[in-house]
Amino acid sequence: MDEKENTVREDLIEGRNAVAEALRAGRTIDKLFVARGETDRTLGRIIARARDKGIPVTECDRRKLDSMSVTHAHQGVIAQAAMREYSTIDEILLYAEERGEDPFVVVCDEIADPHNLGAILRTAECAGVHGVIIPKRRSAGITAVVDKASAGAAEHIRVARVPNISAAIRELKDRGLWVYGAEADAPAELWDTSMTGSICLVIGSEGFGLSRLVRENCDVMVRIPLRGKVTSLNASASAAVMIYEVVRQRLAAEKREG
Amino acid sequence: MDEKENTVREDLIEGRNAVAEALRAGRTIDKLFVARGETDRTLGRIIARARDKGIPVTECDRRKLDSMSVTHAHQGVIAQAAMREYSTIDEILLYAEERGEDPFVVVCDEIADPHNLGAILRTAECAGVHGVIIPKRRSAGITAVVDKASAGAAEHIRVARVPNISAAIRELKDRGLWVYGAEADAPAELWDTSMTGSICLVIGSEGFGLSRLVRENCDVMVRIPLRGKVTSLNASASAAVMIYEVVRQRLAAEKREG
Repeated sequence: MDEKENTVREDLIEGRNAVAEALRAGRTIDKLFVARGETDRTLGRIIARARDKGIPVTECDRRKLDSMSVTHAHQGVIAQAAMREYSTIDEILLYAEERGEDPFVVVCDEIADPHNLGAILRTAECAGVHGVIIPKRRSAGITAVVDKASAGAAEHIRVARVPNISAAIRELKDRGLWVYGAEADAPAELWDTSMTGSICLVIGSEGFGLSRLVRENCDVMVRIPLRGKVTSLNASASAAVMIYEVVRQRLAAEKREG
Repeated sequence: MDEKENTVREDLIEGRNAVAEALRAGRTIDKLFVARGETDRTLGRIIARARDKGIPVTECDRRKLDSMSVTHAHQGVIAQAAMREYSTIDEILLYAEERGEDPFVVVCDEIADPHNLGAILRTAECAGVHGVIIPKRRSAGITAVVDKASAGAAEHIRVARVPNISAAIRELKDRGLWVYGAEADAPAELWDTSMTGSICLVIGSEGFGLSRLVRENCDVMVRIPLRGKVTSLNASASAAVMIYEVVRQRLAAEKREG
């Protein structure tokens, strides 16, 4: 399998809202194509914003836009976004090494909702996580919506997109990381579980939690206590609690070691 | 001021998506009004769903709907939702007492985004928080969107809507609660701060954090460490970390005493 192919993706962003969002979210855009002669206010604002940012704006025939369009709903504007540079697992671990820190990796197992994925990326970036791993399928990619939901964190944090999450987890284990997952009926509370050292946290999907195969690959399952009537936390809330528990334990260990 | 008036609100839900969402979210609906003779598939599904739930469906003149409508975009359907029963601060504290627990209250200071408010309600409900206090102004109310974002938690947790957040915080202090807020440059990390006993956590707005007046009313300000480039956590992530830190400390105290 060509690893390069998996780590790089080119995006066309089509339609007025989507392009406006991408510009607002600070997504790097190489070129903006607009339909010649369509100069209403919304499009005018998009063009002005793009020019402010130094993005080349090309007027072209509506037929050219039609032929570029994947969605067939371009509304007279298509942005050619910069290649999104996904990272590799190697690069994430190397980054931890460069910082002189034990690796701290988050794996998102099939987070389909871009707002949830964005929220997890933001929390991870804030907490100093070295990288996030997402699957190529059945997951939101790093779109403009995710970028926006992450408050720009998606631009800063390393994200690797892998064909197989279980294989990625096994690779992390081989490289010395301990893998933790959460589920409602795990025997140990997360606070009673040591989570220092080289860590990988696996965050399950919104609807179904961790898949059986992924759960079997976890070294330790922990429980976030639930005391109410609703039977599960939102994926991004669960991620926030888990990620910051690792931060808590790391800081406590640093203080003990002086 | 008539307290009753502040704690009860009647809602008209207008438009196809909004009504469909409210039905899906399990919002209690007293009556559904649909425009006579408009029998397309979407409306048909809404009517069928309402009848399944035993909700009376009234066909009426479009002009009647027009005159009921507040949004002037009812799309041929208006639901009259049940009165939302907001709680009072008294009721929240009484509920804690009935459970034999130290009060644990969350105050949301101007959370405008209904998804964030819903996410906070869900985390609070899951963590066993006794009630959430929101302001009457400059805050999302408990709409169908909030209900949905909370995964139904909004139906379970006590929510008080108050005219003045600072006054509500002072009342909680008078009644023996310790009030904690978070800000990025607070001197103490939350983990180094004792948060057992009777607790109120104040969650600041998405854009601006806590207002000066509200911050001055907090007994203790704590810091959630930030180690990345993004300068703040999302309000709901910050709430999740704070709320579960209180749960952690409570459980640890129970074990010590237990």
